[in-house]
Amino acid sequence: MNQVLRQHIERVVPLSDEEFDYILSLFTRKKYLKHQFLVQEGNYVEHDYFIMSGLAKASRFDEDGKEHIIQFGMSNCWISDPQAYHHQGKATLNVQCLEGCETLLITFKDREQLCADLQKMEYFFRKKATDESIKLQRRILCLISNNAKDKYEDLIISYPGLDQRVSKAMIASYLGVSRETLSG
Amino acid sequence: MNQVLRQHIERVVPLSDEEFDYILSLFTRKKYLKHQFLVQEGNYVEHDYFIMSGLAKASRFDEDGKEHIIQFGMSNCWISDPQAYHHQGKATLNVQCLEGCETLLITFKDREQLCADLQKMEYFFRKKATDESIKLQRRILCLISNNAKDKYEDLIISYPGLDQRVSKAMIASYLGVSRETLSG
Repeated sequence: MNQVLRQHIERVVPLSDEEFDYILSLFTRKKYLKHQFLVQEGNYVEHDYFIMSGLAKASRFDEDGKEHIIQFGMSNCWISDPQAYHHQGKATLNVQCLEGCETLLITFKDREQLCADLQKMEYFFRKKATDESIKLQRRILCLISNNAKDKYEDLIISYPGLDQRVSKAMIASYLGVSRETLSG
Repeated sequence: MNQVLRQHIERVVPLSDEEFDYILSLFTRKKYLKHQFLVQEGNYVEHDYFIMSGLAKASRFDEDGKEHIIQFGMSNCWISDPQAYHHQGKATLNVQCLEGCETLLITFKDREQLCADLQKMEYFFRKKATDESIKLQRRILCLISNNAKDKYEDLIISYPGLDQRVSKAMIASYLGVSRETLSG
């Protein structure tokens, strides 16, 4: 199962067995049940989560109690509250399992150590962060141009098969549209 | 003037004079006039632009000819078409000067070389990309929760003083709202 992480990294940089063993030694493997929280609003965020299997969502509730989904996490995704994780603050997001999840988690300190020790991992995380920015910019463009078709297509590209695994209400919450718009 | 870049990098990592000289040797300094394009849709994107002074916008026109502004670039910002630059493809965005700009530009190849040669620059660009992602996620949250006040506040935090330098129509185009909404 840990090979999921190795394959994920090796799509960007090749690794020797020794390098992968070292990388893996900094992660903790942990299973979560459906509905369980990885991150809870108001708590310090100790870990970034690499999802090997399952499905999670990162979301925030607004003052009216309405949920807004920022991100889904499927296998081969990283999920956390990035602001809180990278700046060692308290979560403003919740990350919750929508299906049981198998994860590999890493503390901020260990992730920084890993990057300092192995430049190829600094390269790997730079490339991941850059690609994440590009993906988020594309999503912003869909949101500001308010093109419902583009928004939905962008979701399907970002999360293949997701529409079969979550409710229409959740997809609407991610797209920032009403549930009714989506059926229309 | 080149010190603007040094200070920008040194907010993240300290540099020796030799290191900064090497970094600077990979950049080309170039001035652009108001209305001039740094990136044009359909062309290959050779450079990432560090803006030392002035103001630019990155935007896309939709099928109806309506402009959607993805990003403003003020001093101490990087601007380009990131998808095209990082994946060496053709631009789908335009980047145009709203004021005359003094820039330092770098090719993708030289940026990668710089990261490979100096791990502290790999670290620097990893941190910048991570912070950019966090900023974009915050903007997405404002967009999907459709809170006009939060959207506007987020703009002011991201771009201090911008509201004094561009038209309300441009701010509306960035926020994904109608020009009328903004006056309301």
